[in-house]
Amino acid sequence: MRELGIGLIGTGFMGRAHALAFNNARAVFDLPLQLKLVVLADADGERAERCAKAWGFAQAQGDWQALINDPRVDVVAITTPNHLHYPMAMAAIAAGKAVYCEKPLAVNLEQADAMRQAARAAGVITRVGYTYQHNPMIGLARQMIANGELGRIISFQGEFSEDFMADPASPWSWRCEVEHAGGALADLGSHVLSMARYLVGEVVSVCADTQTVHGQRPVVKGSETLQAIAVDDQTHALLRFANGARGTVSSSWLKHGYKNHLSVEISGTEGTLAFDQERLNELRVYRTGQKGFQRMLAGPDLPGYAAFSPAAGHQLGYNELKTLEVQELIMAMAGQGADGSDFDDAWEVERLATAIRTAAREERWVRISEVNGEAGA
Amino acid sequence: MRELGIGLIGTGFMGRAHALAFNNARAVFDLPLQLKLVVLADADGERAERCAKAWGFAQAQGDWQALINDPRVDVVAITTPNHLHYPMAMAAIAAGKAVYCEKPLAVNLEQADAMRQAARAAGVITRVGYTYQHNPMIGLARQMIANGELGRIISFQGEFSEDFMADPASPWSWRCEVEHAGGALADLGSHVLSMARYLVGEVVSVCADTQTVHGQRPVVKGSETLQAIAVDDQTHALLRFANGARGTVSSSWLKHGYKNHLSVEISGTEGTLAFDQERLNELRVYRTGQKGFQRMLAGPDLPGYAAFSPAAGHQLGYNELKTLEVQELIMAMAGQGADGSDFDDAWEVERLATAIRTAAREERWVRISEVNGEAGA
Amino acid sequence: MRELGIGLIGTGFMGRAHALAFNNARAVFDLPLQLKLVVLADADGERAERCAKAWGFAQAQGDWQALINDPRVDVVAITTPNHLHYPMAMAAIAAGKAVYCEKPLAVNLEQADAMRQAARAAGVITRVGYTYQHNPMIGLARQMIANGELGRIISFQGEFSEDFMADPASPWSWRCEVEHAGGALADLGSHVLSMARYLVGEVVSVCADTQTVHGQRPVVKGSETLQAIAVDDQTHALLRFANGARGTVSSSWLKHGYKNHLSVEISGTEGTLAFDQERLNELRVYRTGQKGFQRMLAGPDLPGYAAFSPAAGHQLGYNELKTLEVQELIMAMAGQGADGSDFDDAWEVERLATAIRTAAREERWVRISEVNGEAGA
Amino acid sequence: MRELGIGLIGTGFMGRAHALAFNNARAVFDLPLQLKLVVLADADGERAERCAKAWGFAQAQGDWQALINDPRVDVVAITTPNHLHYPMAMAAIAAGKAVYCEKPLAVNLEQADAMRQAARAAGVITRVGYTYQHNPMIGLARQMIANGELGRIISFQGEFSEDFMADPASPWSWRCEVEHAGGALADLGSHVLSMARYLVGEVVSVCADTQTVHGQRPVVKGSETLQAIAVDDQTHALLRFANGARGTVSSSWLKHGYKNHLSVEISGTEGTLAFDQERLNELRVYRTGQKGFQRMLAGPDLPGYAAFSPAAGHQLGYNELKTLEVQELIMAMAGQGADGSDFDDAWEVERLATAIRTAAREERWVRISEVNGEAGA
Repeated sequence: MRELGIGLIGTGFMGRAHALAFNNARAVFDLPLQLKLVVLADADGERAERCAKAWGFAQAQGDWQALINDPRVDVVAITTPNHLHYPMAMAAIAAGKAVYCEKPLAVNLEQADAMRQAARAAGVITRVGYTYQHNPMIGLARQMIANGELGRIISFQGEFSEDFMADPASPWSWRCEVEHAGGALADLGSHVLSMARYLVGEVVSVCADTQTVHGQRPVVKGSETLQAIAVDDQTHALLRFANGARGTVSSSWLKHGYKNHLSVEISGTEGTLAFDQERLNELRVYRTGQKGFQRMLAGPDLPGYAAFSPAAGHQLGYNELKTLEVQELIMAMAGQGADGSDFDDAWEVERLATAIRTAAREERWVRISEVNGEAGA
Repeated sequence: MRELGIGLIGTGFMGRAHALAFNNARAVFDLPLQLKLVVLADADGERAERCAKAWGFAQAQGDWQALINDPRVDVVAITTPNHLHYPMAMAAIAAGKAVYCEKPLAVNLEQADAMRQAARAAGVITRVGYTYQHNPMIGLARQMIANGELGRIISFQGEFSEDFMADPASPWSWRCEVEHAGGALADLGSHVLSMARYLVGEVVSVCADTQTVHGQRPVVKGSETLQAIAVDDQTHALLRFANGARGTVSSSWLKHGYKNHLSVEISGTEGTLAFDQERLNELRVYRTGQKGFQRMLAGPDLPGYAAFSPAAGHQLGYNELKTLEVQELIMAMAGQGADGSDFDDAWEVERLATAIRTAAREERWVRISEVNGEAGA
Repeated sequence: MRELGIGLIGTGFMGRAHALAFNNARAVFDLPLQLKLVVLADADGERAERCAKAWGFAQAQGDWQALINDPRVDVVAITTPNHLHYPMAMAAIAAGKAVYCEKPLAVNLEQADAMRQAARAAGVITRVGYTYQHNPMIGLARQMIANGELGRIISFQGEFSEDFMADPASPWSWRCEVEHAGGALADLGSHVLSMARYLVGEVVSVCADTQTVHGQRPVVKGSETLQAIAVDDQTHALLRFANGARGTVSSSWLKHGYKNHLSVEISGTEGTLAFDQERLNELRVYRTGQKGFQRMLAGPDLPGYAAFSPAAGHQLGYNELKTLEVQELIMAMAGQGADGSDFDDAWEVERLATAIRTAAREERWVRISEVNGEAGA
Repeated sequence: MRELGIGLIGTGFMGRAHALAFNNARAVFDLPLQLKLVVLADADGERAERCAKAWGFAQAQGDWQALINDPRVDVVAITTPNHLHYPMAMAAIAAGKAVYCEKPLAVNLEQADAMRQAARAAGVITRVGYTYQHNPMIGLARQMIANGELGRIISFQGEFSEDFMADPASPWSWRCEVEHAGGALADLGSHVLSMARYLVGEVVSVCADTQTVHGQRPVVKGSETLQAIAVDDQTHALLRFANGARGTVSSSWLKHGYKNHLSVEISGTEGTLAFDQERLNELRVYRTGQKGFQRMLAGPDLPGYAAFSPAAGHQLGYNELKTLEVQELIMAMAGQGADGSDFDDAWEVERLATAIRTAAREERWVRISEVNGEAGA
């Protein structure tokens, strides 16, 4: 069986999530390629060593460029802070490697465009970590929609809200910087925009409202020195889809009580479905003729679930969605097309976010096609 | 004790709801005035007779003008189709009577303005049937917000969706006519706009999107003759409030699976509350420091509930919200200020709906102050 | 139309609930008899006067025997404390009047048996206030079961728990006296036993465990003088039904967080249904082949609901269940058989409760047929 | 760092779950011992080879005795069918190895007793896969109870119901054989009995009712040849705890609509908590003074959760509970006491199940101390 060498950059939460996912994908799926965890890189070489050992990587590296250049590495997985996605992905593409990058793809649309153009030109496979879409319940939702089980789709209501910045004493971080693709829309909203495209299709125009509620935050936790904040705390938008559906999207990192409230409700001429990531193993579905919503619980009739458990109700966790994402990457590497988000998809999501920001700033409807976001534009 | 004579026009669902409410208010509350159910009018005099008997009215009438002129009548309750609200209310005001009118106040903003101006000039008490606000749980929500228990309010998300028009075979009715204040926004959305004002305060500007999904419907059930439909099936809007809060409002009568989904979620700097009319005896509340949302169940610590039951969990129904509305009307008649919606409030709601329609038609943000909607304007 | 004269004894919460129900039944239903609210009795004659006026009774009485003797009274409604049910009902039966009595029927099984024997001998119609059964959703559940939609019934799990006595400082009341049919089983559990019979059928044997957790309570609120308590705070039982189904019943008035948690879950060979009085307008149903439970919301397809609202989702409250109970009483009085609980049913419920207490006391399985509970036995 | 060699027997669903858990424990926790996945055994040696490769074991084996004898193996993990637990565990104990065995410990109480006696005598560490207890939310529940946050515990209601045998056409399997510890009580109910002990403490007496609803099943799927079935399809029991609490336990594999409905509700003099495995990341808690139940969502304030995600709401899945179980095993191996179920605990659970079966068969209350279940007794 052909080997597939993995090089992973980054050892934070997302680095570990990738490592777990590669390990588990190997154990759980009957993969067409033989995964090799070749090298793990972190600027802190000692940390890289320690993590490589714990996570099953054959080698550690302090230098990410060396990882990319390593001939045994076929896929470069990037889990570093956002501003590093661009240089690392571009280097990997230049080296002819596949790239598996965390979201957001880049810190601005021009970078993102350059990256997708480069990937296309080089013919390399790319994937971006819009992990929530790999939930088998989302796959089921997509299939139901595609099969017409809800009829013609007419509305979409999406939200991604959490409360981790609700306390005004929550300090500044890179997530509060425009230059690092910060703000609630980029950090959280992008997931629900991606979900909107994945489930309903392309958006053609938007109108929006963004707001910075807490214009200053401590520079570090507990400090009395305040830092001005320019990114959005909450964003609300109206969406029009190419297929005629209409809807709204909201995102906030100030909404008390919510921890991972990525919710979508999609309604068609023959039914409605609703999903909330806080109950990721459930899908609520109503179809014409039913007496009320059915609460469906994930089970082994869905292949993505069956991989982890033969019994309904056992439930998947977030890390297993990551494993499903990795599986799709590997299937793509084996030429067995899977449907994850590639750089083109990720660019479309960021273009949509850019359109939303423009619409909010200029207080008008913006057609997505207005935003070409090309590198150099 | 001073008597208060009630004249009720209309014997449909809403007429009966009023009749029940007057009867029950008398039984349930220790009222400062002695209610007399004087006369019930319906164009169908025989039906008026029959209903008067069943509902405890002393007399029946085929002629609503005679009811208004009856010197024993102090309050004229109007539950007729929307286009009759204007002539009836104007006649009642001219006769110096208090008016208790179902929503919407009128079929256009100019009529509504004329009505409120006339009521002001005549100094008569008015009330409009935004019944859902009289829910003790909504009263509790309002009080919590007013007390600052959620901190400064920063977001509002409201929706009123049902599915009674979801089937394209659902026929045309007066609800499908612009001239009769038809459409999902007027029929359903107005309730959530009223709730937005009641709970969060004045809206200053809106942007919106309305859509007619089913442009034709059978003229009557089962007919193959189709009637063109111009009113909205669904509307989505962005709201900016005077106090700085931002949010969205949606309404639809096409959303499968929902029967009375009037929901609001209001978030502040120190907490969030959520309500859904489909579970009208519950309020979900999260405040800083809690581990998760509390599901509060209506109980006798709320006076509006205690009137009906000494025990928590017994639950109120819709008709009891109507009784609470009637109680507030009577308290106002006794000079003991209560807080229901009067003609000024109802006009503000319709002005807001008008602004939303304008914003949608002209595809731009509209300041509410642009819409003067004055009679003759 | 023939008149039906109502005499109501008692002006507490239940007295008022009856009064509201009689008034509303008249307004809401097209009744075959003409209801007359003839006389209201209360030992406190002044209070009787005041309430009679507010509730629409033609006359007030301080003497309940006079009410019973009043030739205009056809139905005697009894809402007094439990120990008065027996003398009042026996007097009413002796006078040939129909009796509508609150639950429990009596303070012991012998009294209850004497009452049902007397009612049979006199041929009078009787009804007992097991109000929760009149919920249209319970009617729907019963119909589904009767139609075989769940297949053969194999399990029943019922509970009625509240927390109004959870605080050990909650003082003694007559509900704490065996002689007044006190305790959690009699006060709450009897409702779920009645529901078990109504939905699944006769119970043939039981085993049980009862417990007094707080053996002493203040004689009055705030007092340091404690009163010994002998009635059960919580009871758990195993049930075997005549049709082969098995199950459990629990009741407690100490269970924190619950206000009206009368819940039943019934499972058959082809499906399961679940109900909780704290969400009285909902029924959760699963049938073979479904993907998950459907949450059904009460609507006008159920006649008992349609009487109050033409629109689904408007929701009924507790007082409307009482109105439905009254309607069934009136239909029975008109010879148009309805299915409320009569004295025989109520006796069966108390016999079942007696069997449970015996089983708990003697720590053994008890066949219901062992408990004849005959007067004088 | 000292090495800890793992030998795993079995490659079914549970074998893989163990393998995943060992791999992930290594990646996720900072363990005091260095895990080595030494050898994987399966009677089908070829399958063992394939799985060993996929799951990261250094070697495969067709002979489990050889695995036990392998000097590099310190812990023998047993995931084979129930009847093999006894010989394998006894062999491992004889070899002085720690044993990590799936539940049930054995196919009868005598075997189980012999196993725990042997383990004690040999001084080896043992663990049994009552995996659901390792949920951080259950840990939180236990801690709240231990801290007295619910006051004195007075009631326990537990259930474990699924519907995988609800269809009478579901064929016979070893789970239908008494000799293989089959039946709903052993298969499902044992988990909730274990949970009862873990959260509330020892049970002192029981009364119970078991029932075989479908007395015959096809010998294999689709066959018309039927096999008589003697094990219980559903069991209901009353429990009395040593600390005075009372309650019920139910288990069924016939209850339509449920997939993994392991639920517990525990009530004390100051509060109530409720958990359902179908929403394993949630705990509902009510404490005196609250307005309603709080729905708590798992988050990184719980160490067992933080190991997998730094963010609340991400959610754990079943396989991660297994990883937590493995971590506790390893901590125990390192002499850093953790609190999983050992053979003594597992024997107590089976003793309790035996008492329940005895109580059902003999239709009487049974004291747990009556059941000595000693080997040879």
